[in-house]
Amino acid sequence: MIVLKLGGSAITDKDRAETLDGEALESASDAIATALEASAEPGNPNLVIVHGGGSFGHANASDHGVTTTEGSHDIDAVHDIHGAMKTLNGFVLSRLIERDVPAVPVHPFSTASRDQSGRLELPTGQVETMVSEGFVPVLHGDLVSHAERGVTVVSGDELVAELARALEADRVGLCSTVPGVLDDDDVVIERITTLEGVADVLGESESTDVTGGMAAKVAALLDLDAEATIFGLDELEAFLAGERPGTTVY
Amino acid sequence: MIVLKLGGSAITDKDRAETLDGEALESASDAIATALEASAEPGNPNLVIVHGGGSFGHANASDHGVTTTEGSHDIDAVHDIHGAMKTLNGFVLSRLIERDVPAVPVHPFSTASRDQSGRLELPTGQVETMVSEGFVPVLHGDLVSHAERGVTVVSGDELVAELARALEADRVGLCSTVPGVLDDDDVVIERITTLEGVADVLGESESTDVTGGMAAKVAALLDLDAEATIFGLDELEAFLAGERPGTTVY
Repeated sequence: MIVLKLGGSAITDKDRAETLDGEALESASDAIATALEASAEPGNPNLVIVHGGGSFGHANASDHGVTTTEGSHDIDAVHDIHGAMKTLNGFVLSRLIERDVPAVPVHPFSTASRDQSGRLELPTGQVETMVSEGFVPVLHGDLVSHAERGVTVVSGDELVAELARALEADRVGLCSTVPGVLDDDDVVIERITTLEGVADVLGESESTDVTGGMAAKVAALLDLDAEATIFGLDELEAFLAGERPGTTVY
Repeated sequence: MIVLKLGGSAITDKDRAETLDGEALESASDAIATALEASAEPGNPNLVIVHGGGSFGHANASDHGVTTTEGSHDIDAVHDIHGAMKTLNGFVLSRLIERDVPAVPVHPFSTASRDQSGRLELPTGQVETMVSEGFVPVLHGDLVSHAERGVTVVSGDELVAELARALEADRVGLCSTVPGVLDDDDVVIERITTLEGVADVLGESESTDVTGGMAAKVAALLDLDAEATIFGLDELEAFLAGERPGTTVY
């Protein structure tokens, strides 16, 4: 089982509101379709995809002041943010289906919730059944209902971590705008085993991102039982073929 | 807690593919908005809505040969049927939101699944959290992933029954095209306590309905702990105000 994250910044233009990076998304979809055709069991891809929000989710969430901890009860906020993420999800699905990837949507707002402490409850029986039936579930960063706070953001990275645990994923892939985690000389760090070792090189991402930058990603990946790999779009096909491009966090 | 079903035939033209009964939906939305404004706790409606498929879901499911037991692995079937139901859900939500009902979508395909025996697994933590935060979740008849069968249909009625049980609903309302269950002289039967007593008057519905007609509805309602009431659109406001119009099944 592979859980693959398509970074929001990798498939959208993060600096322009609700703008797709069409070329990048086509390229990612090509790589996924090629990998599934080439896999040992083409009818049973055992793949779950999660995509981030990029310029669809983050700008809307920011406008309404909603984060992973700051909630809202405003119905317009719910529909703007959730609606934008569903629009992006529709774009991702259509590109995959055009290439015969049996992709199906799973909207986290429809299934997940948070308790008062913020702990995410994410049912995964539907995802497991979809995968076992040969479908490729496609989730996305979204809003979730949150006890005493209305709705808050759930990031794609948090969903990836929860799915990897619940589905006992073998591999987690984070397809990003960069070829991996870079050191001070912009060279890809091949392996990360502790956050302390790389804390000085992990800054904040430059665009609006309500769900944290690379440091948050690495911290979440270190917590996983699965081996996680961060790589650029060019290496997606290699990752899906079993290689370890970019940075491996374990 | 009230679980309200808006029958697919009550809000769509069941004999014309993907055609809304706009006037009926406006009228239902008016009644719901009025009832929420008049309720003792206007900010906490404690209401969950489920709508059927009518001419959006049933025709598409029928075209693809998908029922509650006959499954499909065809990705086009998934997107046609699920897509049509999401379109209808969007229409229902927009009418409610226009009237300041804090309605939010819950797509069953994103959360529910069936095991090999066909048993429905429907997580409800998200619905409970939405309701406790003052939102009105709006679910709908849909597809669900089904072990060994791909996807099958889940009817609005099955969702109503599951929700009523899981949420320990006090009342269940089925808003239909008829003023209640009718006897052979077309007079509304006020109370039904066993299926046998009314078996002879419960025929199949006249239009395409992959999820069973009135007999299936009544049988499911008799199984509930909650009191269930079947009534016509004209009586929706009365039902939400606490009255028992039409037929009560208990």
